[in-house]
Amino acid sequence: MQPDLLHRADAAHALQHFRTLSLLIHCMTNDVVQTFTANVLLALGASPAMVIDEQEAAQFSAIADALLINVGTLTADRARAMRAAIHSANTAGTPWTLDPVAVGALTFRSDFCKELLALRPAAIRGNASEILALAGMSAGGRGVDTTDHAQAALPAAQALARQTQAVVAVTGEVDYVTDGVRTLAVTGGDPLMTRVVGTGCALSAVVAASCALPGDRLTSVAAACSVMAQAGSRAVAASTGPGSFTPAFLDALYALNGEAFA
Amino acid sequence: MQPDLLHRADAAHALQHFRTLSLLIHCMTNDVVQTFTANVLLALGASPAMVIDEQEAAQFSAIADALLINVGTLTADRARAMRAAIHSANTAGTPWTLDPVAVGALTFRSDFCKELLALRPAAIRGNASEILALAGMSAGGRGVDTTDHAQAALPAAQALARQTQAVVAVTGEVDYVTDGVRTLAVTGGDPLMTRVVGTGCALSAVVAASCALPGDRLTSVAAACSVMAQAGSRAVAASTGPGSFTPAFLDALYALNGEAFA
Amino acid sequence: MQPDLLHRADAAHALQHFRTLSLLIHCMTNDVVQTFTANVLLALGASPAMVIDEQEAAQFSAIADALLINVGTLTADRARAMRAAIHSANTAGTPWTLDPVAVGALTFRSDFCKELLALRPAAIRGNASEILALAGMSAGGRGVDTTDHAQAALPAAQALARQTQAVVAVTGEVDYVTDGVRTLAVTGGDPLMTRVVGTGCALSAVVAASCALPGDRLTSVAAACSVMAQAGSRAVAASTGPGSFTPAFLDALYALNGEAFA
Repeated sequence: MQPDLLHRADAAHALQHFRTLSLLIHCMTNDVVQTFTANVLLALGASPAMVIDEQEAAQFSAIADALLINVGTLTADRARAMRAAIHSANTAGTPWTLDPVAVGALTFRSDFCKELLALRPAAIRGNASEILALAGMSAGGRGVDTTDHAQAALPAAQALARQTQAVVAVTGEVDYVTDGVRTLAVTGGDPLMTRVVGTGCALSAVVAASCALPGDRLTSVAAACSVMAQAGSRAVAASTGPGSFTPAFLDALYALNGEAFA
Repeated sequence: MQPDLLHRADAAHALQHFRTLSLLIHCMTNDVVQTFTANVLLALGASPAMVIDEQEAAQFSAIADALLINVGTLTADRARAMRAAIHSANTAGTPWTLDPVAVGALTFRSDFCKELLALRPAAIRGNASEILALAGMSAGGRGVDTTDHAQAALPAAQALARQTQAVVAVTGEVDYVTDGVRTLAVTGGDPLMTRVVGTGCALSAVVAASCALPGDRLTSVAAACSVMAQAGSRAVAASTGPGSFTPAFLDALYALNGEAFA
Repeated sequence: MQPDLLHRADAAHALQHFRTLSLLIHCMTNDVVQTFTANVLLALGASPAMVIDEQEAAQFSAIADALLINVGTLTADRARAMRAAIHSANTAGTPWTLDPVAVGALTFRSDFCKELLALRPAAIRGNASEILALAGMSAGGRGVDTTDHAQAALPAAQALARQTQAVVAVTGEVDYVTDGVRTLAVTGGDPLMTRVVGTGCALSAVVAASCALPGDRLTSVAAACSVMAQAGSRAVAASTGPGSFTPAFLDALYALNGEAFA
């Protein structure tokens, strides 16, 4: 089953749609990437809100357009609040996305992520080592970084998609997005992005938001990956290292329009 | 009761005073905006410190020049520590400022903020939806964003100021600062600032610090709004999007002097 | 006992070594500086991971190359997790570094830091007021800022090094790095760095990582100080204030090579 390339017109259409909707995104994410995640969503026209108290998280996921669950700095309190938010989201019909940061080597988050797989995520976004570990096919990467190539994790991503009914995105030099039957490949981006904390976590937030778009979810998630990759390539061209990359990347996301995909 | 425009000489004078005092500001703020808040205060010559343990927060608010309470990522633990800090601040005579982020739709923070109104805040800074909700005149905005114009919230701000004896700043395209009797209007800033997370929260930190200035508090708080608006306008002129805005804004705050208001 | 200047060839050699090792650094640091700390380590080729749950922290410090303990936003939960991580690090032979932020005036962190001194830190990095307070020779600075000069804290640093067997770095206009017998002085940097939150905290993370280098630890820690000072000087030259400093600093760290010390 060879992956197809995402059509440029589909990416352009999804981006245009994304900008018009002012999506309200409930982000329960790790402490390291909150500012960057919020700024990425704001640059794309969405409204992020980071609500973390257990009671408030359950209230808020019911009124948000989408929910992000990122386990990067998981604690017992945060896990309780995330569970409450997911259950409330599922009742309300809010799609939720899982970013299983560093799953594999660390027991608490690994058990938690596996528990969450039964709670019907709309999408899962991880690097190759995370997707392999989540699918039970390896013991994980090195800290938060992958030790595997995205292509090597494609069978794991497809199995995970079939098991959970989620769209699974395994990202790397090439991103693969699959629903277990169809697979789309997304190119672009730059290795410099791995020298800036939170590029993957912020992508997961855009993936979460894209699950609130009407239309084919596989295409929407692949479009989210493509938007970030295109903005990343442009930002690298406009910057002189990982420091100047960040402002250039947010400016690129803010300016990006359909013509970027033509 | 028509608002008066803040006098430029008053803004220039307050800024000059602010820079000379090296104010020590205790910030109990949300997890998303801590870095930006600290950098804004540092650029203006103040010394921020984020102390959050309950016992330490009570110790620190007694020796700080001012205290900021921002409920953006409130938890039960954080609420306890904030209460302890406020009581200690009140005993020591440290002025404290409330930023009621997203008050209205979320029950826990709404109850908490209303409880705090009885604890004599020196100032309250919010967007229109937050000030309307805090005054009991609406159910709040959409997530952390306002769905109302600042001018529409001016009567609520004035009522809230009379009720609490605090200076209330309701910020938006035009900012209004009121003590319930007098009202000052502050212009400047740019809509691009709503595409950068933390500009409002950082303003609240500067408002908190400005409450430690000697002299008329209404004028000091309005001057804080004006300083941020002036730096914002300059930064927008020097940047190409929300990413390059942030470094340009901090540089503008650092460079801003009385001549900017002439 | 006059300090010697760090040899430039030693700094260049340590930097080169640092870049080749892709060190995995477990950062338990304060909420304000996590993003900047991660980006500093990434710019230098290391892999940061912020793991904070008590059980996970103990798992992770055993597999990391080095552990950083920074008490800036200490809470009771965080203190428990830090203790677990340190004990596990000591069992596994992972070197750990203490940044005693604002020790002195605040009781909880002061007691905690003094308890940690018995747990064999590899290195301690603080400003003059922090090192004086930790050595029991003063009551601390003003918030997170020093009120003393680094040179005035050198005897305290040397006493602390002899007491704990740690390499102690007291940083300021000139940095002093001592093992209680030998002392190295490191010049460079710029006062503008005190107007950017987290430059000291990020230095502590680089110090922590440098403790994982083979060879003389005193030299490695002094080299870490020198790398940050050199990049700081270059970034100040390339920037127009504290806002543009941050991207310029990360770019400078990313580009820095041995020739910078020639």
